[in-house]
Amino acid sequence: MENLHLQAMRIATAAREAAGGIAGAGGGEKNAALAALTQALRSRRKKIIAANKKDVAAAQRAGQPDAFIDRLTVTPAGVEKMIAGVQQITALPDPVGQVLDGWTRPNGLRLERVRVPLGVLLIIFESRPNVAIDAAALAIKSGNAAILRGGKEALNTNLELGECWRDALSAAQLPPDAAQILATPDRELLNELLKLSTLIDVAIPRGGKELIRALLENSRLPMLKHLDGVCHVYVDSAADLAMAQDVVFNAKVQRPGVCNAAETLLVHQDLAAKFLPPCLAALSGAGVQFFGDHAAMKYGKNVAITHATPESWRTEYSALTLNVAVVKSLSAAIQHINNYGSHHTDAIVTRDLDAATRFQKEVDSAAVMVNCSTRFNDGFEFGLGAEIGISTDKLHARGPVGLEGLTTYKWLVHGTGQVRT
Amino acid sequence: MENLHLQAMRIATAAREAAGGIAGAGGGEKNAALAALTQALRSRRKKIIAANKKDVAAAQRAGQPDAFIDRLTVTPAGVEKMIAGVQQITALPDPVGQVLDGWTRPNGLRLERVRVPLGVLLIIFESRPNVAIDAAALAIKSGNAAILRGGKEALNTNLELGECWRDALSAAQLPPDAAQILATPDRELLNELLKLSTLIDVAIPRGGKELIRALLENSRLPMLKHLDGVCHVYVDSAADLAMAQDVVFNAKVQRPGVCNAAETLLVHQDLAAKFLPPCLAALSGAGVQFFGDHAAMKYGKNVAITHATPESWRTEYSALTLNVAVVKSLSAAIQHINNYGSHHTDAIVTRDLDAATRFQKEVDSAAVMVNCSTRFNDGFEFGLGAEIGISTDKLHARGPVGLEGLTTYKWLVHGTGQVRT
Repeated sequence: MENLHLQAMRIATAAREAAGGIAGAGGGEKNAALAALTQALRSRRKKIIAANKKDVAAAQRAGQPDAFIDRLTVTPAGVEKMIAGVQQITALPDPVGQVLDGWTRPNGLRLERVRVPLGVLLIIFESRPNVAIDAAALAIKSGNAAILRGGKEALNTNLELGECWRDALSAAQLPPDAAQILATPDRELLNELLKLSTLIDVAIPRGGKELIRALLENSRLPMLKHLDGVCHVYVDSAADLAMAQDVVFNAKVQRPGVCNAAETLLVHQDLAAKFLPPCLAALSGAGVQFFGDHAAMKYGKNVAITHATPESWRTEYSALTLNVAVVKSLSAAIQHINNYGSHHTDAIVTRDLDAATRFQKEVDSAAVMVNCSTRFNDGFEFGLGAEIGISTDKLHARGPVGLEGLTTYKWLVHGTGQVRT
Repeated sequence: MENLHLQAMRIATAAREAAGGIAGAGGGEKNAALAALTQALRSRRKKIIAANKKDVAAAQRAGQPDAFIDRLTVTPAGVEKMIAGVQQITALPDPVGQVLDGWTRPNGLRLERVRVPLGVLLIIFESRPNVAIDAAALAIKSGNAAILRGGKEALNTNLELGECWRDALSAAQLPPDAAQILATPDRELLNELLKLSTLIDVAIPRGGKELIRALLENSRLPMLKHLDGVCHVYVDSAADLAMAQDVVFNAKVQRPGVCNAAETLLVHQDLAAKFLPPCLAALSGAGVQFFGDHAAMKYGKNVAITHATPESWRTEYSALTLNVAVVKSLSAAIQHINNYGSHHTDAIVTRDLDAATRFQKEVDSAAVMVNCSTRFNDGFEFGLGAEIGISTDKLHARGPVGLEGLTTYKWLVHGTGQVRT
């Protein structure tokens, strides 16, 4: 059996070589590959479903929970959704080659800053096989080569999807190794790949925070990541109460399992008595359970509120659970958010312009919202057309990461013989 | 003695608290602090020089080499240079608050992407004390708090410069901890700081690659760094020979110790016989020594050329030493550069438009230049007005990093009660 280090080197070298071809491809060629991909997904649909049935059956035998089986399962409608996703990405403008800015220096040197692909992306995902299509389509559209390492439970499905990619890239006369699915999803091979910082430009984990923490321990690669989504809604003393209740309800209940759902409700003390009882009753009616501080517990007469610990305020429940705190002031709300939050998405509900402005200035988060649900922090909702993830990092990309987040730039300098004196 | 972990926590917490104050400061306040800094440098000049004499004497007793002593020494003219640097930074536009872009979504949500400071920067430098002024002035101007950890040999000087910062920030009524000089420059304290990823946003090493490699081993912080500068000049078959010789001479000889100096000359085989003998003679006259491939060695009749190994092509000499290779084609030159180079700065000399275009497209470097010296890759020469370093990373900032490189952005979302359906 091939030594793991050599295997990693072979995979990464093939990706690096393919990256040159895909970086140089025009928008038309890349779109042709994406069109061929949709055809390949259609013509291989039965094989994909059959391979997925094997994976699902094995996961069921292994006693995986229902939510896991659900993420793993690819239905015919799921294939159609992949196809629709690829078509959406195809329709986006090509980010490569965009001139970001440029100017001429007094000595006549002409400068341009031009958008170029990052190079080779290592995309690490868990049980959802659609990432092998969605994320790789974003990589190809932005001129990068992708190495895709999915969960071992989805291997049969992912390998079929990998065949679709090979067909599509070959059909468009682009290097087939521009989208490689790893046939050996062991952690050891991944750890070898995470060391190859001269061949791989960026690691992009698409999965839970346990995955990301494990990668951070082992990776020598720069990473585009998002960790926790501990998002807040603050209901200010000048809030419209009906709007506030709508926003809180939507932020918590509409899809509690995602990172831009709210985990904590902060309410100004001046309106806690009026706002909290009906708001908590409505949330409770939707199945929400509560942790709260002493002040909040006073208003939870008809709903059960467990006393919150400092750990509660830092927890991303990803479930129908909400922290509730009564705060003395806007300053206290901002301090709570910057202290316990994860710098992801935080919203204020208020009619007071000063409060809105101060909240947006002082809350140190990727997205700071006024009078709307935290659930809007999303590449599609923001109009980026696509999303590889939502970054809570400050370097490179912050918030929703679309095609531009998968590019860098180079400086082109045009001279006529200039030398430095 | 205070436990190192607690000491690191105390320093980083103070910086984090100061970061809020400096991030919220207007351009006028920050400029007032920089103006007060120039006054403090003037009024403390004698103390700075006296402290520096102690450091220099200790370094001399320790037998440090002349180049080290040279970097460590602060003369009255050196203080004037620091003052001039601060004045230059003061004159730059404030990057904070710039609206990068924005739009309105079909549901009426209004989005803005606004430039904000990164937060807390950990700036690690070696023997040059001026970094404590230059780099920190860039940090403050861009609204960040800086923790500055200089070399232990410059401690007395750096502590005096730190006093200038405290005076200046206090005079401008900004938090004095926004620019902290570490009084204990041990490696162990630094290693503790490098773990505090919830308090410190970015590590910025300003020093040699050994420093950076050591930090990479220990850091849990994102890093803005530059490693090697293995830069190339390729003389194409369609080059103007006089221009080519000027560019090569300037790129190698004008200041060989810096990262944008050339380390390797590639010459197309069609003009090697005509170009190389006079070019190598001129370089040799300036004291340059050579490594070369067999073809280059043929043309070095009157100059000594040592046979190059694969290691030679990867070496940043930072000295009057140059690799010379004869290549068969533009493709071979590009392949050599992408294979052995450090993705820093590479130049082609040519009159052929196709060759220039292809070189700029296919060379994967931060700056790719046509008909000028590699020495121009520099924040001042590019017109950025300042430079914290030259990044060879692809994420966040590539090439010269000015004030913008010390900022990130946040998404401000303005709604009227929107919720997701």
